Amino acid sequence: MNNVVKIAVDAMGGDGSPKKVIDGILHHYRKNKNSLYQIFGDQEQIESHIKQSLPKNCFEIIHTNETVKGTDSPLEGAKRGKKTSMWLAIESVKNKKSDVVISAGNTGALLVISKINLKMIENIDKPALSALWPNKTGMSVVLDLGANIECNPKNLIDFSIMGSSLFKSLYPNDNAKVALLNIGTEEIKGNEMIKETYQKLSQKKNQDFEFKGYIEGDQLMNGDVNVIVADGFTGNIALKTAEGTASFIINELKKATTGNFIGKISSLLNISNLNKFKKRLDPRLYNGAIFIGLDSPVIKSHGGTDHIGFSNSLSVCTKTVTGDLINKIRNNMN
Amino acid sequence: MNNVVKIAVDAMGGDGSPKKVIDGILHHYRKNKNSLYQIFGDQEQIESHIKQSLPKNCFEIIHTNETVKGTDSPLEGAKRGKKTSMWLAIESVKNKKSDVVISAGNTGALLVISKINLKMIENIDKPALSALWPNKTGMSVVLDLGANIECNPKNLIDFSIMGSSLFKSLYPNDNAKVALLNIGTEEIKGNEMIKETYQKLSQKKNQDFEFKGYIEGDQLMNGDVNVIVADGFTGNIALKTAEGTASFIINELKKATTGNFIGKISSLLNISNLNKFKKRLDPRLYNGAIFIGLDSPVIKSHGGTDHIGFSNSLSVCTKTVTGDLINKIRNNMN
Repeated sequence: MNNVVKIAVDAMGGDGSPKKVIDGILHHYRKNKNSLYQIFGDQEQIESHIKQSLPKNCFEIIHTNETVKGTDSPLEGAKRGKKTSMWLAIESVKNKKSDVVISAGNTGALLVISKINLKMIENIDKPALSALWPNKTGMSVVLDLGANIECNPKNLIDFSIMGSSLFKSLYPNDNAKVALLNIGTEEIKGNEMIKETYQKLSQKKNQDFEFKGYIEGDQLMNGDVNVIVADGFTGNIALKTAEGTASFIINELKKATTGNFIGKISSLLNISNLNKFKKRLDPRLYNGAIFIGLDSPVIKSHGGTDHIGFSNSLSVCTKTVTGDLINKIRNNMN
Repeated sequence: MNNVVKIAVDAMGGDGSPKKVIDGILHHYRKNKNSLYQIFGDQEQIESHIKQSLPKNCFEIIHTNETVKGTDSPLEGAKRGKKTSMWLAIESVKNKKSDVVISAGNTGALLVISKINLKMIENIDKPALSALWPNKTGMSVVLDLGANIECNPKNLIDFSIMGSSLFKSLYPNDNAKVALLNIGTEEIKGNEMIKETYQKLSQKKNQDFEFKGYIEGDQLMNGDVNVIVADGFTGNIALKTAEGTASFIINELKKATTGNFIGKISSLLNISNLNKFKKRLDPRLYNGAIFIGLDSPVIKSHGGTDHIGFSNSLSVCTKTVTGDLINKIRNNMN
């Protein structure tokens, strides 16, 4: 088997695991036969869910009873030691037995244990948490989403490079267009840190991405740019506010369309259209986050997603490897 | 006429003015007979729109040909001098000829000219730009939205007091519940500035508002709190991201429901429900912003809104006066 993508899977993290994780693997495998899953967790439970559905040569179960809890603080999670399913999965990429690691478990613990085990890519000061976000014409990469509360211009420039590399790994046919999230689009707007970053990015010569200047919150989804860069505080506020607004509107819409008989009839008629709408905005499509800056990709699936969402995160795993994310970042840093 | 609310109106700012502004006044007057409008701008144009529709004793036109342009920088706007409709309107509250001032014109110029003419309320270091934002159970006040990019704990505590006072002026029957916008809800989350603010607000004894701790972006609209406090950078990013997300979703929904014949039929059937939905989310309902911290209320209507939106901003003017906003802030600062 050539070009096999070896994925280290923490089977025990998130709601409804390991069943959700295994169902996600089965779903992912149908379209990605060149996968080898290293599955970490409770062997008996994992086997009971896999049954006969997955060929024996495309997975391996590494048994452990220890798990990081969702309620652990990042440090508590790390202190549970080297036998948790999360730690073992990360160690597997450290030892080059896997190409990429994925967990739907405790985000903070995943970041801490990854930092303990994996090396930073040369010349990058801080790894960043990135995610996919829909826009009018496709998807954007947004980072940092909370790994680094305070940033300097060098960090934001690194994020631009890492974000563009991730974008190109996921969407090889598109060009990366970077913008800095700010409170205005004129050159003089914003704090000193962001203005200095703007100057440096404007002067930077590179063929990896096009720098498009500042972007305001209300333009994030218009599709003019596809890599959105911010410090972790700002990026987290923006992403969560967008999530909150989306669920608020969809709830208001549900209330409006199910309130009476006419509403129900028209909802029935409308079902194919609403399905199109739902599909476009299905959060499972852009489930999870990608922790970049370390020498292996670390993928965080949302703890609350279902097996379809987990499968989509496994597709992100596959693309970061086939798209050669880590080497792209290394080359673009030079 | 007792309890007359005297409103200084810059008639020349924003798209479609002065017609929009005058139509807004006519609309507002129907429900607010105890209003006296001091209208600043081109007398001939203003009179042509008012015609016979407004009783002569409830308005006064102060003629000027000079206006601040929408494209002016804040300083350019201020440098146009003391004869612009915006400057004269603000001067009218300075000289106590009006109780409150409103403009749909250039936001930056409005802030600068207000700061030049009006005094700060005692003990407040920085005025803030606030706005109304819908939530599941009603409306929230959010501040600061961009007037102050860098803030210290004292500023955020002032914003809490000013925001609660504004909330109580607008919704006298509800209790003000304040939260700090942050990237997590645990006490240890966030930057040093926000953690220090949290400590001080937790220890602060007051009967003006209840401090509910931190709130994350995805909880902004769930209605648990109604006064949301942030520095101007963070608040601006959050508000604009919410606006961008809302318009993205509504556009996607329109695409989905008007794409084909079935979609059109069901949209027709659905019209009363969608109207309910639209009404709930109509941005004209919470049009504009309130600049607070100066010794008179300064109301900014959105430049792009229509006469209904302008009329709603006039209602905010009325409520800040009848609700005694400035004295509420003064009392709560002590």
